[in-house]
Amino acid sequence: MQFLSDNAASVHPKVWAAMKGADDADAPYDGDALSHRMDEAFSDLFGRECAALWVASGTAANCLALATMVEPFAGVICHREAHIETDECGAPGFYLHGAKLLLAEGAGAKLDPAGIEAVLAGITRGIHQVPAQAVSLTQASEYGLAYRPAELAAIGALAKAHGLGLHLDGARFANAVAFLGCTPGEAAGPADALSFGFTKNGGMGADAIVLFDPGKAELVRRRRKRAGHLQSKGRFLAAQILALLEGNLWLDNARAANTAAQAIAEGAQGRLVHPVEANELFVHLDAAERAALRAQGFAFYDWDERSARLVASWNTRVEHAAMLGKAIAAL
Amino acid sequence: MQFLSDNAASVHPKVWAAMKGADDADAPYDGDALSHRMDEAFSDLFGRECAALWVASGTAANCLALATMVEPFAGVICHREAHIETDECGAPGFYLHGAKLLLAEGAGAKLDPAGIEAVLAGITRGIHQVPAQAVSLTQASEYGLAYRPAELAAIGALAKAHGLGLHLDGARFANAVAFLGCTPGEAAGPADALSFGFTKNGGMGADAIVLFDPGKAELVRRRRKRAGHLQSKGRFLAAQILALLEGNLWLDNARAANTAAQAIAEGAQGRLVHPVEANELFVHLDAAERAALRAQGFAFYDWDERSARLVASWNTRVEHAAMLGKAIAAL
Amino acid sequence: MQFLSDNAASVHPKVWAAMKGADDADAPYDGDALSHRMDEAFSDLFGRECAALWVASGTAANCLALATMVEPFAGVICHREAHIETDECGAPGFYLHGAKLLLAEGAGAKLDPAGIEAVLAGITRGIHQVPAQAVSLTQASEYGLAYRPAELAAIGALAKAHGLGLHLDGARFANAVAFLGCTPGEAAGPADALSFGFTKNGGMGADAIVLFDPGKAELVRRRRKRAGHLQSKGRFLAAQILALLEGNLWLDNARAANTAAQAIAEGAQGRLVHPVEANELFVHLDAAERAALRAQGFAFYDWDERSARLVASWNTRVEHAAMLGKAIAAL
Amino acid sequence: MQFLSDNAASVHPKVWAAMKGADDADAPYDGDALSHRMDEAFSDLFGRECAALWVASGTAANCLALATMVEPFAGVICHREAHIETDECGAPGFYLHGAKLLLAEGAGAKLDPAGIEAVLAGITRGIHQVPAQAVSLTQASEYGLAYRPAELAAIGALAKAHGLGLHLDGARFANAVAFLGCTPGEAAGPADALSFGFTKNGGMGADAIVLFDPGKAELVRRRRKRAGHLQSKGRFLAAQILALLEGNLWLDNARAANTAAQAIAEGAQGRLVHPVEANELFVHLDAAERAALRAQGFAFYDWDERSARLVASWNTRVEHAAMLGKAIAAL
Repeated sequence: MQFLSDNAASVHPKVWAAMKGADDADAPYDGDALSHRMDEAFSDLFGRECAALWVASGTAANCLALATMVEPFAGVICHREAHIETDECGAPGFYLHGAKLLLAEGAGAKLDPAGIEAVLAGITRGIHQVPAQAVSLTQASEYGLAYRPAELAAIGALAKAHGLGLHLDGARFANAVAFLGCTPGEAAGPADALSFGFTKNGGMGADAIVLFDPGKAELVRRRRKRAGHLQSKGRFLAAQILALLEGNLWLDNARAANTAAQAIAEGAQGRLVHPVEANELFVHLDAAERAALRAQGFAFYDWDERSARLVASWNTRVEHAAMLGKAIAAL
Repeated sequence: MQFLSDNAASVHPKVWAAMKGADDADAPYDGDALSHRMDEAFSDLFGRECAALWVASGTAANCLALATMVEPFAGVICHREAHIETDECGAPGFYLHGAKLLLAEGAGAKLDPAGIEAVLAGITRGIHQVPAQAVSLTQASEYGLAYRPAELAAIGALAKAHGLGLHLDGARFANAVAFLGCTPGEAAGPADALSFGFTKNGGMGADAIVLFDPGKAELVRRRRKRAGHLQSKGRFLAAQILALLEGNLWLDNARAANTAAQAIAEGAQGRLVHPVEANELFVHLDAAERAALRAQGFAFYDWDERSARLVASWNTRVEHAAMLGKAIAAL
Repeated sequence: MQFLSDNAASVHPKVWAAMKGADDADAPYDGDALSHRMDEAFSDLFGRECAALWVASGTAANCLALATMVEPFAGVICHREAHIETDECGAPGFYLHGAKLLLAEGAGAKLDPAGIEAVLAGITRGIHQVPAQAVSLTQASEYGLAYRPAELAAIGALAKAHGLGLHLDGARFANAVAFLGCTPGEAAGPADALSFGFTKNGGMGADAIVLFDPGKAELVRRRRKRAGHLQSKGRFLAAQILALLEGNLWLDNARAANTAAQAIAEGAQGRLVHPVEANELFVHLDAAERAALRAQGFAFYDWDERSARLVASWNTRVEHAAMLGKAIAAL
Repeated sequence: MQFLSDNAASVHPKVWAAMKGADDADAPYDGDALSHRMDEAFSDLFGRECAALWVASGTAANCLALATMVEPFAGVICHREAHIETDECGAPGFYLHGAKLLLAEGAGAKLDPAGIEAVLAGITRGIHQVPAQAVSLTQASEYGLAYRPAELAAIGALAKAHGLGLHLDGARFANAVAFLGCTPGEAAGPADALSFGFTKNGGMGADAIVLFDPGKAELVRRRRKRAGHLQSKGRFLAAQILALLEGNLWLDNARAANTAAQAIAEGAQGRLVHPVEANELFVHLDAAERAALRAQGFAFYDWDERSARLVASWNTRVEHAAMLGKAIAAL
């Protein structure tokens, strides 16, 4: 039973079907009928006009979105444990031509106005120091915690007051929406751009860059092309995304993953490093305990010496999750 | 009947099957069993040890390969009409951090030693001028012409004498091999790295970077990651490539496309801008003639005011190609 | 007698005096009183509001100016023999983060609307091809030819019509103004930015970036800093430039150099590769003739196998120039 | 009486004389006789073969030196308060094409093995995380503290064990040597490259990049050129540096500055934030105290709300320094 990561899970049958349905040749790149439907589909979803472009990875989505906000001599405020800081091998430095990540603190890998203001307060040297031009949040955070609409509003107001763009890394945006029980628009708050992940949530390799200022789309289009991310059979990426939007399959998948995570969490009370809001659990487990669980057939990654990360996917069977919960409780 | 481009063609059924067969979760990124088989599969194919990495586009493949050879202050000699110069929106400048493309001349978009030497002869200003560090050829060329092994050997010797790396853009390498009737190793000649295209030849979105110096793989792996091209479900890219290598399906597909191209060419004698060696034809057709063909149901792109580009794909039906040939002959 | 290059000539005594006069400590970087006078001094000179920043080299001036106009995925139209293309070791690619130089043709290394339009006409592939965002001219050109105000106006109109910025590389702008006998503003035409060279014209190491849109100054200031070109004792660069502006010393120096060039030209009639307008001469001289001149004590560079480049400086003695002219005439 | 910064101080008379002595035209760029003497002069000084190149700023020196060690996808370990992190407006990101600074802790802005190891210990995510390729120390540190040879040896051993290059930012290297009373070679320890500052120590605008692996010089030369830092009258930069090396004027100047700093320190005992080793003092002074000192004619910068930074220069008069010390003592 596999709780390693959602990022390698199977592709949802409806996504397979949609891809197969797109097999006939259409215009290359993003000239096909499916790619043309992206803007409208996301505008409908968010209830306001936006532009949406597919890319094959969250790293590309994050960096291309940030490139609409940040000049090469500037910086992006993000959490010290943000994915763009710790897991993208310097991709923001590459895409932003040397711009810096300005690291902020905050519980559960979430930023708050105080953490952001602390970074801003340290920028005192004028021309000699990198200015901030954007804030990047992860919704849900690297520890699976969701920003509430009020939290987003507060950060958005702060960003606006300082002339900073606001980006959301939404690799697990669906799980955040499912947890919050709000609309996608509410879960995005006043973001200027959102990396909306589908790959971890039933897709194969397709995330969306959602631009709430559609005027920025041309910039992203150019940069996507020159990053080698304008795939010639882009219709297959659009097909994945549209299939997941259809009938809110993305939300169903995220709910399923979250539900499975809760089933684990029930058995792990008292051991949780963070509250469980989305589909990831960080659980205090020592080496012997981890070995014992693995001996029972549960696969997962160590997080650090004292804890493990357990991830539920859209297709995690809730009974398996409950079994894992019980196994943890029985330790 | 569609002769627009091979880059938007359907995916081969065996590729679909292989992708579906890879649906069960495996290790993410390139840690899965299929990705692990890449090096050996290409080493077998080329008869010498090589490393092979998947990426989703030819642009990424070209640029990541070139980044193993060229420093930011240096240049790559390529044909004035090379894809990296004309069709990648500056991707080499992005991936190579400002390195230049040094444009050479040559018939049929092929380079020859004289063209390369002319570029080298113009580099006379020492520290003030960008030095060449690599040569990039397209096999088959942008006009569908294949480099013969002896031509590759001559260019390779020149490159070696000047300390230049040798890169092949093989977006249609399969078509070149099919035409040449030689081994893949012979069609690659003394290249240091090859971008081996599968997307246009029955794949969905997977090309291989083949490094004949496997010691360069770690560099490419790092740069692939930070370009956002390390897809988390990379097994689906490996699956595509391995399926096309299996039983030489890649070669069968290329032969089919080349055969269809020849069927068109038969009717277009006297109108051909270039000899037809691979799966692309450049045919003198004036505006009225193009309109006449389109009125008969043939779809294709204009190349310039006086000619059209016709492309056969792996799944172009030879009878359709023959019909197009006859329609041209009847103009 | 030295006709090698103006770029290594002595520093004018008044420049030395001004530098010495700036020796007392003042605020570092560009916070000093002299640096503060730059904007006004150039606004007065050009008769319109502009911002002016010092840098130590023409390469830095050119690239920082272009960075206000050109995004990393775009290109700059310049002459095939422009200094930014042939003599800056890829600096534009570095400063512009991979943007391309789009090479145009034109007699005497001068661009004209036809040459620019030919480049624009070749940009047909939409997202796949690098778009032009600026035109860069050299005033006076690499062959010492000056753009007339009407020529600048025509190019400026074309640039405006296509939404292109207009940059002048004015490494020898002073010599152009001296030749044209017009105002600096007329010699700059509708340029958005000018690299105004002082180093070759009596300075030590100080050129000015003149921005006719002062709103761009902050961008240049940031990029200058992060390029390591914000010298801490910047007052010494400002001192050089202001000393040369004072009493139009820059123009006197340029006239002296041009006059010396004309003195050579008188003896070289019939051998001139280009008309002599500024302070450089390109003269047909075979190897034996060059050796003969050198044997008489004249130092200069070969240009190519059949010609030499002769350069007069602000301090070239006119009698030496006349001697060289006579020596050429006597060959 | 000015204690603002050494970076805007006057130029030493012998430096003026040397520059004036270099006024006659010589070969441009670094082809002149003075530039040719740099390698030997520094090899003599350090007692081992090295290559040395001039640049106009410490920022350029640091970044060009680091570019010999660090690939674009990698990182440099430096102190959280290092100049390259806080005061160069992202220059390392520009010159290193997006490489990261990996921030370490350490008292007095000095690194130690524990701080470096803590950074290394955090690099656990393989391909997903930026690897370290170099360590950069500031000798003397941003708080004016000098690394002892044994400290350098320990860090050097650690760097070597992890395959990291070792760079010293020596903007005030002279002051460190003067304090340590050791040879320059001992104060550089096992560094691979040193940015040796002369601008703050009697020069006008010239620092040296000293490469203890001379084989790296060509890389720096290329990158210096394309950064616009290859000044055409480079002889004036070489002249400054050679004049300061002559007769150990650099050391005399540094000793004078350090002596003045000590004269201040005598009066500031009990208020010192850090021990005074070089020519900078950080002194606890509240707003009223700072105002009182300024009212007496002392000029200096606030450091933070509770302290001031006082800097002595090569030409600070020791009696002025003593007056400031007494004024502080009298507060």
